[in-house]
Amino acid sequence: MNVLVLNGPNLGRLGSREPDVYGTASHADLVAYCTQAAESLGLSVEVRQTDSEAELIGWLHEAADAGAAVVLNPAAFTHYSYALRDACAMVPGPLIEVHLTNPASREDFRHTSVVSAVANGVISGFGVFSYILALQAVAALAPNEG
Amino acid sequence: MNVLVLNGPNLGRLGSREPDVYGTASHADLVAYCTQAAESLGLSVEVRQTDSEAELIGWLHEAADAGAAVVLNPAAFTHYSYALRDACAMVPGPLIEVHLTNPASREDFRHTSVVSAVANGVISGFGVFSYILALQAVAALAPNEG
Amino acid sequence: MNVLVLNGPNLGRLGSREPDVYGTASHADLVAYCTQAAESLGLSVEVRQTDSEAELIGWLHEAADAGAAVVLNPAAFTHYSYALRDACAMVPGPLIEVHLTNPASREDFRHTSVVSAVANGVISGFGVFSYILALQAVAALAPNEG
Amino acid sequence: MNVLVLNGPNLGRLGSREPDVYGTASHADLVAYCTQAAESLGLSVEVRQTDSEAELIGWLHEAADAGAAVVLNPAAFTHYSYALRDACAMVPGPLIEVHLTNPASREDFRHTSVVSAVANGVISGFGVFSYILALQAVAALAPNEG
Amino acid sequence: MNVLVLNGPNLGRLGSREPDVYGTASHADLVAYCTQAAESLGLSVEVRQTDSEAELIGWLHEAADAGAAVVLNPAAFTHYSYALRDACAMVPGPLIEVHLTNPASREDFRHTSVVSAVANGVISGFGVFSYILALQAVAALAPNEG
Amino acid sequence: MNVLVLNGPNLGRLGSREPDVYGTASHADLVAYCTQAAESLGLSVEVRQTDSEAELIGWLHEAADAGAAVVLNPAAFTHYSYALRDACAMVPGPLIEVHLTNPASREDFRHTSVVSAVANGVISGFGVFSYILALQAVAALAPNEG
Amino acid sequence: MNVLVLNGPNLGRLGSREPDVYGTASHADLVAYCTQAAESLGLSVEVRQTDSEAELIGWLHEAADAGAAVVLNPAAFTHYSYALRDACAMVPGPLIEVHLTNPASREDFRHTSVVSAVANGVISGFGVFSYILALQAVAALAPNEG
Amino acid sequence: MNVLVLNGPNLGRLGSREPDVYGTASHADLVAYCTQAAESLGLSVEVRQTDSEAELIGWLHEAADAGAAVVLNPAAFTHYSYALRDACAMVPGPLIEVHLTNPASREDFRHTSVVSAVANGVISGFGVFSYILALQAVAALAPNEG
Amino acid sequence: MNVLVLNGPNLGRLGSREPDVYGTASHADLVAYCTQAAESLGLSVEVRQTDSEAELIGWLHEAADAGAAVVLNPAAFTHYSYALRDACAMVPGPLIEVHLTNPASREDFRHTSVVSAVANGVISGFGVFSYILALQAVAALAPNEG
Amino acid sequence: MNVLVLNGPNLGRLGSREPDVYGTASHADLVAYCTQAAESLGLSVEVRQTDSEAELIGWLHEAADAGAAVVLNPAAFTHYSYALRDACAMVPGPLIEVHLTNPASREDFRHTSVVSAVANGVISGFGVFSYILALQAVAALAPNEG
Amino acid sequence: MNVLVLNGPNLGRLGSREPDVYGTASHADLVAYCTQAAESLGLSVEVRQTDSEAELIGWLHEAADAGAAVVLNPAAFTHYSYALRDACAMVPGPLIEVHLTNPASREDFRHTSVVSAVANGVISGFGVFSYILALQAVAALAPNEG
Amino acid sequence: MNVLVLNGPNLGRLGSREPDVYGTASHADLVAYCTQAAESLGLSVEVRQTDSEAELIGWLHEAADAGAAVVLNPAAFTHYSYALRDACAMVPGPLIEVHLTNPASREDFRHTSVVSAVANGVISGFGVFSYILALQAVAALAPNEG
Repeated sequence: MNVLVLNGPNLGRLGSREPDVYGTASHADLVAYCTQAAESLGLSVEVRQTDSEAELIGWLHEAADAGAAVVLNPAAFTHYSYALRDACAMVPGPLIEVHLTNPASREDFRHTSVVSAVANGVISGFGVFSYILALQAVAALAPNEG
Repeated sequence: MNVLVLNGPNLGRLGSREPDVYGTASHADLVAYCTQAAESLGLSVEVRQTDSEAELIGWLHEAADAGAAVVLNPAAFTHYSYALRDACAMVPGPLIEVHLTNPASREDFRHTSVVSAVANGVISGFGVFSYILALQAVAALAPNEG
Repeated sequence: MNVLVLNGPNLGRLGSREPDVYGTASHADLVAYCTQAAESLGLSVEVRQTDSEAELIGWLHEAADAGAAVVLNPAAFTHYSYALRDACAMVPGPLIEVHLTNPASREDFRHTSVVSAVANGVISGFGVFSYILALQAVAALAPNEG
Repeated sequence: MNVLVLNGPNLGRLGSREPDVYGTASHADLVAYCTQAAESLGLSVEVRQTDSEAELIGWLHEAADAGAAVVLNPAAFTHYSYALRDACAMVPGPLIEVHLTNPASREDFRHTSVVSAVANGVISGFGVFSYILALQAVAALAPNEG
Repeated sequence: MNVLVLNGPNLGRLGSREPDVYGTASHADLVAYCTQAAESLGLSVEVRQTDSEAELIGWLHEAADAGAAVVLNPAAFTHYSYALRDACAMVPGPLIEVHLTNPASREDFRHTSVVSAVANGVISGFGVFSYILALQAVAALAPNEG
Repeated sequence: MNVLVLNGPNLGRLGSREPDVYGTASHADLVAYCTQAAESLGLSVEVRQTDSEAELIGWLHEAADAGAAVVLNPAAFTHYSYALRDACAMVPGPLIEVHLTNPASREDFRHTSVVSAVANGVISGFGVFSYILALQAVAALAPNEG
Repeated sequence: MNVLVLNGPNLGRLGSREPDVYGTASHADLVAYCTQAAESLGLSVEVRQTDSEAELIGWLHEAADAGAAVVLNPAAFTHYSYALRDACAMVPGPLIEVHLTNPASREDFRHTSVVSAVANGVISGFGVFSYILALQAVAALAPNEG
Repeated sequence: MNVLVLNGPNLGRLGSREPDVYGTASHADLVAYCTQAAESLGLSVEVRQTDSEAELIGWLHEAADAGAAVVLNPAAFTHYSYALRDACAMVPGPLIEVHLTNPASREDFRHTSVVSAVANGVISGFGVFSYILALQAVAALAPNEG
Repeated sequence: MNVLVLNGPNLGRLGSREPDVYGTASHADLVAYCTQAAESLGLSVEVRQTDSEAELIGWLHEAADAGAAVVLNPAAFTHYSYALRDACAMVPGPLIEVHLTNPASREDFRHTSVVSAVANGVISGFGVFSYILALQAVAALAPNEG
Repeated sequence: MNVLVLNGPNLGRLGSREPDVYGTASHADLVAYCTQAAESLGLSVEVRQTDSEAELIGWLHEAADAGAAVVLNPAAFTHYSYALRDACAMVPGPLIEVHLTNPASREDFRHTSVVSAVANGVISGFGVFSYILALQAVAALAPNEG
Repeated sequence: MNVLVLNGPNLGRLGSREPDVYGTASHADLVAYCTQAAESLGLSVEVRQTDSEAELIGWLHEAADAGAAVVLNPAAFTHYSYALRDACAMVPGPLIEVHLTNPASREDFRHTSVVSAVANGVISGFGVFSYILALQAVAALAPNEG
Repeated sequence: MNVLVLNGPNLGRLGSREPDVYGTASHADLVAYCTQAAESLGLSVEVRQTDSEAELIGWLHEAADAGAAVVLNPAAFTHYSYALRDACAMVPGPLIEVHLTNPASREDFRHTSVVSAVANGVISGFGVFSYILALQAVAALAPNEG
């Protein structure tokens, strides 16, 4: 199965951004980890990052058209982008929301996700490993989906 | 009078997106319907769609400069884009907010519009026909405006 | 198709009531406009007004029994009359909520409608023309309904 | 590493309880799946279930004393048991909150977790597989913890 | 010290946009004023404007990389763009939020800023002069920062 | 003891109104059931229905003057008619609020009753049988009251 | 000047209704007191009472047409009847809201008036004397009004 | 039909606990009344009481397995025990929530029930007689259920 | 009877303070009006003003000790001074809250009074005449009080 | 006088549980301190701890039957256990709520106590000494109680 | 150690103020009790009372400068005086908030304290004895402080 | 132009009060800085501080009478003193609210200002330099004002 791993705003700064919060792995490291994990799971993965809500929406449309699974870290869009939510709702395959940190133990505004309700599942708090778990979930869910 | 019919995020997916909710007409169909209706009303219409908040704002600036009327379906931006609202407030001619569905009978977050307060009027719930009604309203309002 | 145009409390005062807000057309003018518009649309229309919640509810029962379409301006009942809402929910044909003004740009209490969720659609902000648009919507929706 | 997989109220009814929501696997199946997964991960696992808040708290104390990792499905306690939360806060090793379903797409009261803030991470929405992912997360986190 | 003066959505319309609210100075005037003020303060300034959240975020990343100070007028993004907030939090140098008007004396939705908590300071209500004051604050803060 | 069974707005439509929600018994059936049940309980009953808040209030005044017990289904008035509440508070004998359905399992606005606080008791969710139970409660309470 | 003293729901029960709260004067007594007080103030007064929102609204329309002053005790309508509020807003002469009791020292729901904002003034807490004070206020305000 | 009458925390103290609020009948009296009433209705009844949430949940599981009807007085659990709610939701037969007093006329926290939404009906305010009415409701509902 | 007329913060500025809101009468005029009115009512009056919460509280203590009636315009203290409220609660004689304007038709924060609940009555909206009405109320209430 | 000192969930972990928050004294130390203090005050004391809500409720019933005073640290039950509150309300003798820490300076959820309203008094913030103060209060209150 | 016992507004009225709520001891009695208790504890105490927020703040500054402990009954200032809170935060020694009554069992507005978060501890509900307990707490805390 | 720099409660403690939050400059330093800055701007400045709401209000009256500009740091009064707000509203010249710290990044209660809505502008977060910026703003605004 094809999987799009989609990262939202500011995630391109991984490694340099508050490393005590987000860890020291860079976005390139994240791409490498995901690629390697996908391979071992027999998944084909593509990892992208954008600060643009519109571009992120476009990628979700692409996933919808391609029947691809999605691992989505909406970053701060999590808390207000209903446009992203509507795009997520169009994705028929498994769509998994991931977070590097555990939003529930951070600022109040991070406790609300407008996206979760249209995701299949949510994984948060394990740093880069959240993505690896999500890929495993995709691998496990995929047979049930397609 | 010139009219810009502006469609927000995910509306390019009309027809394929939850057809039981949004109907089976595609965006191209919508363009055709609007063009035909505008013609019969003596209006010059241009229908555009974007997933980008910035592009949508730019089109509203364009309408403000051109003195064009606007029929706006802000889609999910309806619920949070104060930037869009500020842009709408600059449009001197008639600006009409439309929705394909009736947001009041859907999820709670769809009950709030941050745009309505700066629109001349709101039409929702009639599918593609919401646009046709809005064009008629533009035709009726226009003499009063310009 | 038969259409009942039903106007709620204080709308009998149109023309004399805050003309800068509600316009200068009287209720009699409204009746004339609607009758004329209905005729040209091939609809049979009856326009009524009452300050009584019970009478308004009774008219909705009448519409339900007759299979008539309804264009309803609930006026201030919009904001609290759940009894009206329950009556609206019984009307099988198209039921369209209209407002002369745009409630979203007025006092806070006017931003909430307890009726919209059970209407097919909502049209607000176009003065008397809101009714004409609603009649057109009825004409357009009717074939789908009956 | 030793792992306690702790299940809260009503989870002993798995399989018979709303199977369309919670799946058809029984609690015994869950135990088997977890045991097998733990083994392959080199973890020693014990799976327990209780409807009693006090017993669940006691098991968390036990984990704290033993330095065991915890995979916790607090079930309905998630939404109000601050006593459970306080007990979770005492567990030094990795503590992962899991849910079979995705609470964000269910009733409003399920959108709030009083436990998440003191968990290392949260995994929800993957049925029994949520537990397997959590065990993998424990395996991945464990070297960092102890 | 280098300073990026960053203006958010609709601010390119200064002068033509509600001049009684925002004043008659155009964005070009604003650039000129800021450049002149910066020069006299020994600062190197660049003034930019965009309607795009993603572009604004990118500029903040640029400031973070360059160690530049930031004077930011987030315009309507102030009220909802947590993505912008996260980008602001990455800027190590002084970051000052400015507003032409005093949001506290305008509509309710303008009373909330999701950005202020991660700014060094806030200056609002002085029209274009808000920027000049902010540049002075940068000049004063800079020695303490770098 | 004399008992007034008073039904509020839209209850005259029983049987034809959303039969899957309210059942298939008509209001005439309801009258028959109540009359029969009252007879077997040694109570004298009169069943009335109105869509008018004022008429309902008048009946409560009548009950207050006559010392009659009241079984009241306020229907949608339940949620906002403080005038009805004030009238209920004047009834010295037993006053029992009944509902055909269980409001707690329906829309949010049905979860609030402005009348319950001045009723002796509340019975909801048993269809027409709610009334029979209420009559039994009246029979049981009556000796204590008069 | 002509004055309409208009009493809302349940006020016809004065004297018999919770005399410890509302006093022992009957509505007839209230009429007599007001008539006598109006006479001594050179005002022509008519005192009416109704439990019907529609009738009360009609009387306000009558006052608006006649240019009469209004002393209004909306009783429980105070707390929800926006229809009454809209009717009050049409009365050009002095309109004074009165209450026998002090709503601020009673139940929470009595702390909110949807009518006060469109009244010239409010007098509450003095029993029947609230009306006498209101008539004096009318007498004092009238020269300024007409 | 078998019926479990299940009483929650503190109800074992009936008779000695605030007799002016809860009446003078003891829990033993309650058992006797219910047994006698059940007999006359052809029902087999068992009355139990516990202060333990877990035990109460266990009894609901037992009812679910046995296909028994349930008359449940959740006492203070009413207001927060989502675990109890989840257990109630598993009971296929009639489940009726009862209260001795009318919670709507007591403290604010008693106005909220987290259980009602999953009950077939609710009976409150009739003291011990609430249970007798519930048993009658069970008898009436039972043929429809099984 | 002795009456203390007590005016809170900023009321010494009457006449010069927003005359379109508060009228053109100065505080000295207010004193004169009140003195004259009191005389004609057979009351002994003293009018005082202070910007100090503590002094205002002291005057209320004085009224409590002297058994004097109080006409109190708490001005902005109305909205937050619970210390004032506690002092008002100690005054045994009639205590009447007055306002020059009608707070209900002004800013939201003026809609809440923390004092009203412990006043005998409230009179607002009649400018200086509010005080005259209050003095009449004192005269009317006094025989009942002392 | 007999005094039951009752400690709620997780308090058995004192000393090992977040010592920087709760201090280094163990529960055994707490028992010793209380016993010694009680002795010097002429009180007979028994100190118990449980993680079980039901057991804690049972102990309060025991205190009610025995006429014993209660010093209660409800721990996390403070914030949600209305069942505990109802049990507290049955204790006729002095019941004092104590906390080791000052909940007002900790997380938001600790700012609400559902128990305080039915306690005679509350003492918080003094570590183990909170209990000693409470015992003194019992000694001082006891003569007034019994 | 020196201790300032500081009493806020209206507490000078003790004994005469609602004796059923606040007890019959006068403020002079309170001074005597505190002095005597302090002496036996080896503390030097000074008891003051003021209705003035500014004076109370000044005394807290004095305590901060002198390194004195503070026993503070903020009376009604408890609920809104953030200025008092800021002053309390400056006191380095033990600062204990006391209340004669138990605010949690009184009006809603008394349930919120803006001061507690910056106090070392809180003691409420024991009448004058609340102060004695606070002095003991000071004596116990003092060695740890200085 | 004359400028009054007015500092509210606890600001006399600058330097000694939480220096990590408020800086090490004393109030005397603040006076010196302001005086020097004003001189260089051609302004006449007077800096005052008080803990008394009444005195602060009096100074604002003084500014209103003298036509002086005001730089106001309301300190904790910011969050509740509507009396201060009303006094600010009377000042015709420029009135600028300043804060040493950035309230938006501190406790929740500091996020609300009841004063800002009636200020010309707000400057916060720059320590003592906030005042210098405000003086510059006064200098810039003054020609427009007088």
